[in-house]
Amino acid sequence: MPAQSVRVAAQDLRALATDILVAAGLTPNHARTITDAFIWANLRGIDAHGVVGLPRYLEMFEHEQANAHPSIDVQRIRHSTLLVDADRAPGPLALTVAMREAMPVARQTGVVWAAVRGTVHTGAIGYYTSMASAEGMAAIGIVAGAANTTSTSNGEAQSAGSVTTPFSIALPAQRHPDFLLDMATASLALGKITHAAGAGMSLALELLTSGISGNPLLSQFGAGANDDRQNATLVVVDVSAFLPVDDFRAIVDETIDAVTARPSMGDDAVPIPGARGAACYAERSRDGVPLPSEIWAALLDVAEGFDISVPEPMA
Amino acid sequence: MPAQSVRVAAQDLRALATDILVAAGLTPNHARTITDAFIWANLRGIDAHGVVGLPRYLEMFEHEQANAHPSIDVQRIRHSTLLVDADRAPGPLALTVAMREAMPVARQTGVVWAAVRGTVHTGAIGYYTSMASAEGMAAIGIVAGAANTTSTSNGEAQSAGSVTTPFSIALPAQRHPDFLLDMATASLALGKITHAAGAGMSLALELLTSGISGNPLLSQFGAGANDDRQNATLVVVDVSAFLPVDDFRAIVDETIDAVTARPSMGDDAVPIPGARGAACYAERSRDGVPLPSEIWAALLDVAEGFDISVPEPMA
Repeated sequence: MPAQSVRVAAQDLRALATDILVAAGLTPNHARTITDAFIWANLRGIDAHGVVGLPRYLEMFEHEQANAHPSIDVQRIRHSTLLVDADRAPGPLALTVAMREAMPVARQTGVVWAAVRGTVHTGAIGYYTSMASAEGMAAIGIVAGAANTTSTSNGEAQSAGSVTTPFSIALPAQRHPDFLLDMATASLALGKITHAAGAGMSLALELLTSGISGNPLLSQFGAGANDDRQNATLVVVDVSAFLPVDDFRAIVDETIDAVTARPSMGDDAVPIPGARGAACYAERSRDGVPLPSEIWAALLDVAEGFDISVPEPMA
Repeated sequence: MPAQSVRVAAQDLRALATDILVAAGLTPNHARTITDAFIWANLRGIDAHGVVGLPRYLEMFEHEQANAHPSIDVQRIRHSTLLVDADRAPGPLALTVAMREAMPVARQTGVVWAAVRGTVHTGAIGYYTSMASAEGMAAIGIVAGAANTTSTSNGEAQSAGSVTTPFSIALPAQRHPDFLLDMATASLALGKITHAAGAGMSLALELLTSGISGNPLLSQFGAGANDDRQNATLVVVDVSAFLPVDDFRAIVDETIDAVTARPSMGDDAVPIPGARGAACYAERSRDGVPLPSEIWAALLDVAEGFDISVPEPMA
């Protein structure tokens, strides 16, 4: 932890962030839903998707890049598919709603494919998939979006038209923390790819996600008013359709044991996705969320602007 | 094409391979199903999964590593999930059956998750997913398996306990050939990973596939009689549940156009998954399948052993 930082108790940070979003005009329910995603990211050590984003969210609401009063439309089309029109709700709201609606469908039919169209700033994709693993189900999450803006050589802003497709798989375990893969695939741009390896997968995930949601990002880049839009895919499988969930958890545990049990000399250590985040979550739940002083100061500024009382840091 | 090779017309090669499998005791229906997968691989240029494998298949049947008379059991559990017990049928049979059963379920409920357990030698995973894209649907395919055997320093054979998880996504296009990603993820072994990048994804796909099929490969490696077993996942989405399939095809076409339209100086060319295989398929359908002379001679030997008449090469 850098010298110039504070630690804030998770529940205090949660209350502060919720109060700020309510003061900015969101319903208490929407505010709590978004805040839960922020705090989860902070506790897991994914700070870029934590409360640091709060001032940016207020800007997005103010400039109507994101909708502070969205009417999220969830259509169940056929037995096992959901189409979720996010109405420009930010991801922590749209994808949480989508996952909450998706899980009962997976319980009923074994699997659900939920296409989310027209969200912005999806946040930490692992948060949504881990909602399913916490309920003993398996989930795949894909985000398509995050078009960037770069500058040309003469200093004029120009759209780069690039997309990234973060990808997550969450699986329930028992002795081990739930397995949680949260990876970035190659960035893909008009006319080029940032990394050749993985580009095919990025393109596949963009097509699968944006194609099925009917909201293409790459091909329509620059043609529309809003290039901040993102789409997402959530697939949930109720593993108990196939085998007792405790058997599945045991397979996950024993496979992790097998992969980590016998490291050979000179081999890389085997990182088990989700293990480090789970350890961080436990530590920060106990000791508080570390925040750089300038981030904390920015949050306090926002809170004071709304006349919200602010908590004391832990130390 | 190397000098020491022949070209054989695809229909002749198909007939020869089918005759050989029938002579080896398979039903004509099973023989044709397996042969179709071989010839597809040869036509697409994936020769390692083509007729070169035929002598090995006969050995597997003889030594009962693969079942020449399998009773493949397809259970529809809940509305949108299938559990396919392959009864040690080779992949070209088990996964073709699984995909044929899966597609009508996807039409009905929007998506299907099919878990295939206990197959061997899954072949070219892209063959099965492309069956769905040929019908205007999207498909994801995952294979878990291919445990290897290596030698120790004293020459004794020892199980390495490694798995690979080939991964495929097929999507229907219109002007362009169907999009067909067919990639290998990192190889994963007990106590080590071959490539650190992608290992998390390999582990996730192994757990997702072998866990849901209740047939763990890594954790049980060396404990059972048959370490050749493989499992597979097939997910099919009927995109017409979400939008008209022609709209989806147009998005795929236009996205491919956007990605390939403007290569910048110094950037890598953008490879579109499936394009090269489709071109190869067209060329070889017209000009025949090139086979190294020794492969062709081996097939003729097998055919003569069964007293099967053999076709003439094209040139």
